[in-house]
Amino acid sequence: MRPYELTLASASAAVRSRRLSPVELADSVLGRIEQVEPRLRAYSVVTADRARQAARRAEHEAAAGRFRGPLHGAPMGLKDLIDVAGVPTAAGSRLRADHLADADSTVASRLADAGTALLGKTHTHEFAYGLITPQTSNAWDQDRIAGGSSGGSAVAVAAGAAMFALGTDTGGSIRVPAALNGVVGLKPTYGLVSRHGVTSLSWSLDHVGPITRTVEDAALVLSALVGPDPHDPACLRVSPTGHQAPAGPDLDGLRVGVPRNYYFERVDPEVEAAVRRAVEHLRDLGAEPVEVEIPMTRYVQAVQWGLMVPEATSYHERTLRSAADLYAPDVRVLLEAGELVLAGDYLRAQRARTLMREAWLRLFDRVDVIAAPTVPTTAVRAGQSVVTWADGVTESVSDCYVRLSAPANITGVPALTLPVGRDRAGMPIGMQLMGRPLGEATVLRVGRAYERTAAATGGLAPVVD
Amino acid sequence: MRPYELTLASASAAVRSRRLSPVELADSVLGRIEQVEPRLRAYSVVTADRARQAARRAEHEAAAGRFRGPLHGAPMGLKDLIDVAGVPTAAGSRLRADHLADADSTVASRLADAGTALLGKTHTHEFAYGLITPQTSNAWDQDRIAGGSSGGSAVAVAAGAAMFALGTDTGGSIRVPAALNGVVGLKPTYGLVSRHGVTSLSWSLDHVGPITRTVEDAALVLSALVGPDPHDPACLRVSPTGHQAPAGPDLDGLRVGVPRNYYFERVDPEVEAAVRRAVEHLRDLGAEPVEVEIPMTRYVQAVQWGLMVPEATSYHERTLRSAADLYAPDVRVLLEAGELVLAGDYLRAQRARTLMREAWLRLFDRVDVIAAPTVPTTAVRAGQSVVTWADGVTESVSDCYVRLSAPANITGVPALTLPVGRDRAGMPIGMQLMGRPLGEATVLRVGRAYERTAAATGGLAPVVD
Repeated sequence: MRPYELTLASASAAVRSRRLSPVELADSVLGRIEQVEPRLRAYSVVTADRARQAARRAEHEAAAGRFRGPLHGAPMGLKDLIDVAGVPTAAGSRLRADHLADADSTVASRLADAGTALLGKTHTHEFAYGLITPQTSNAWDQDRIAGGSSGGSAVAVAAGAAMFALGTDTGGSIRVPAALNGVVGLKPTYGLVSRHGVTSLSWSLDHVGPITRTVEDAALVLSALVGPDPHDPACLRVSPTGHQAPAGPDLDGLRVGVPRNYYFERVDPEVEAAVRRAVEHLRDLGAEPVEVEIPMTRYVQAVQWGLMVPEATSYHERTLRSAADLYAPDVRVLLEAGELVLAGDYLRAQRARTLMREAWLRLFDRVDVIAAPTVPTTAVRAGQSVVTWADGVTESVSDCYVRLSAPANITGVPALTLPVGRDRAGMPIGMQLMGRPLGEATVLRVGRAYERTAAATGGLAPVVD
Repeated sequence: MRPYELTLASASAAVRSRRLSPVELADSVLGRIEQVEPRLRAYSVVTADRARQAARRAEHEAAAGRFRGPLHGAPMGLKDLIDVAGVPTAAGSRLRADHLADADSTVASRLADAGTALLGKTHTHEFAYGLITPQTSNAWDQDRIAGGSSGGSAVAVAAGAAMFALGTDTGGSIRVPAALNGVVGLKPTYGLVSRHGVTSLSWSLDHVGPITRTVEDAALVLSALVGPDPHDPACLRVSPTGHQAPAGPDLDGLRVGVPRNYYFERVDPEVEAAVRRAVEHLRDLGAEPVEVEIPMTRYVQAVQWGLMVPEATSYHERTLRSAADLYAPDVRVLLEAGELVLAGDYLRAQRARTLMREAWLRLFDRVDVIAAPTVPTTAVRAGQSVVTWADGVTESVSDCYVRLSAPANITGVPALTLPVGRDRAGMPIGMQLMGRPLGEATVLRVGRAYERTAAATGGLAPVVD
């Protein structure tokens, strides 16, 4: 096995026992980037020198017996909304063509302290305001979309072009591309991970989180990210421990909510079947499936858009006046629409969100996690704009991909996606596990139990050389 | 001394030692209400039977050796925004003419559990949306305003017509009438006291808190109010202990911030002199005055109104459509103006609030409390609509009364007002002590040290019989 094919946990063990040198690991991943980038275009910029320098430092420290933890020497990518001092944050936009970050974001700084090596910045849909990432191809089929907005991060991880990456998630932007590329993505509890130094889309919905090849790896990365940060006013004062998934696969007594409404409506039958099989697998591990009714689902879309559109416009207020023509047309129209929203409509969305969150919290009195499809369908072909369902109903690709992930943004609950199979075309299918606020350990425990015991569904995408 | 003249702490000690019967106490306060109500009109409804019944229960329990705590048998009033099952919540409005609350608010329920006796509901400016309380007269001069919006509560307490009362404070509505009537008012940290069952004015600025005759009493009432409440989504999970003011008057080492800007600008010279004397008194007790610069003051009014106006309109959305003509003209115009606010303007206010709060928190790295006037001038005459300053500048009475209190609503920091003197006309002057979030104990400690050692400035208003 070549080093870039290792999971983060395996590579970490090998580095720790000095069977693998961080320099060798970085070179292997950088070589893989060179190999796959022409086809996938996951990176907006590759910082090879910086990665090798960090790898040498990690090697030096390892030689001196210093091991910073499980991320020591891990080569990783950051979504191009996340500031790293001295590196461009282009945010996928012509508006940021000449932008160079002058300070590290909190998460970049924590990952540097953890001993990681920055490979580069990964492509995002412009300012994270879309679910396609048009620059990048799906890791499993070059003619299909990467998904977004953290498309570059998901594709890089899926292709072995990063051991892990960070994404951001405002309506599903970590989970959607992770599901479409057969990798693991975690949107943590709102406020658990700092967003300081990360370009905002919609501050009351924005989250930063890891994209990895395994649930085990997601837990390792999360532990390095968590911790209070006075620079993000929403950041919770939560200790950075306790987010590890426990080792055992036993799920005795764990109650898995299975939605009877919403989450299986207008969902591709192959996606539905794979998720239901995965739930059966959890039952085999001792979990008890419990049918649940998802509350207030008719408000999901109105609340998600009602919060996001005016907040996004507020963030872009000045550049909309000074340089509106530099935005891509799909993003510009959304930002300009936001200028017309009345405060009363925004507040109605806020109030509905509060009620929705309360109703969701009551769900978690009855179950420990909720299992559902992450997205209704696998990756569509590039250029496809509409999804048509068996009942004749059509919806835009964006509306389709966001509708099952948005509830966790609105309510702030943690949501993990992990691969649970592939469709006939070979495209990956994701299952979403949602938990109570700060219930990351439970969500990760269930996901980890699944991945340890189910027939392998993850693994690297077979990028044709 | 007649029982109604006692402070809550003294009455409590007398009840505990069985020198005073709760029934005797309730009768005394109810008698005082009968005596002063024709002149002051503090109450929208007096629940004499309910008060006597609660007093008999308290007496019964005391006879059996059961003492619920320092509020056992205390007769009190609730601002008429605070629901009590079976009692009208008229909110000062014709819209609520036939309204009967069907359940207790959380604070009413906690006060009932603490053994208090409800005397009645006190007048408020309609839906708390004003600083006058036109129904009620100032306790010290019948021709002057009570202040608002918790005018009835402040006047009742000042006149001996309640041992304490609760008010609500969105821009100063506890502190303004407390200052204008020479009593103590505490706006706690945002989220410390539940607002469940309390009619909202502007949910991101609304607070519930006590109005009392002494700082010591305010601490006693606060302790009965604090505690988590899942029914108020903003309510903090804070334990209900630790809000008592400590006994000693020693303030050695305590740093008192004295604003060099904003809080002494366009302030009546007699008010300024009284507050500066009070700060000198704190210095005599060992405190160290530290000059501070109040940040972002030019945004206070825009942020306060920018948040409050659309939130208030959102709360009244339905009745504005169905029954707009039932609102008083001054309130209706504000509510209708709120329908025109854009989301972008509201969000700009929210973002400025976040920055303002951060800047204020940094102030409290350097000082423990900030001392300032509560309001720029003492109570104006009823009917006066404008205040004219020495430099020729005029402002509306509302703008004048709200501008020094609003910063603590915007930032959520605790703010206590206590009487520190009277002007030549004999009208009370209030000093405001603000502290860091959840710093109630410190604010109460400083206020208590002042009241124990300064020449008496509080006491009952001399209502002419």
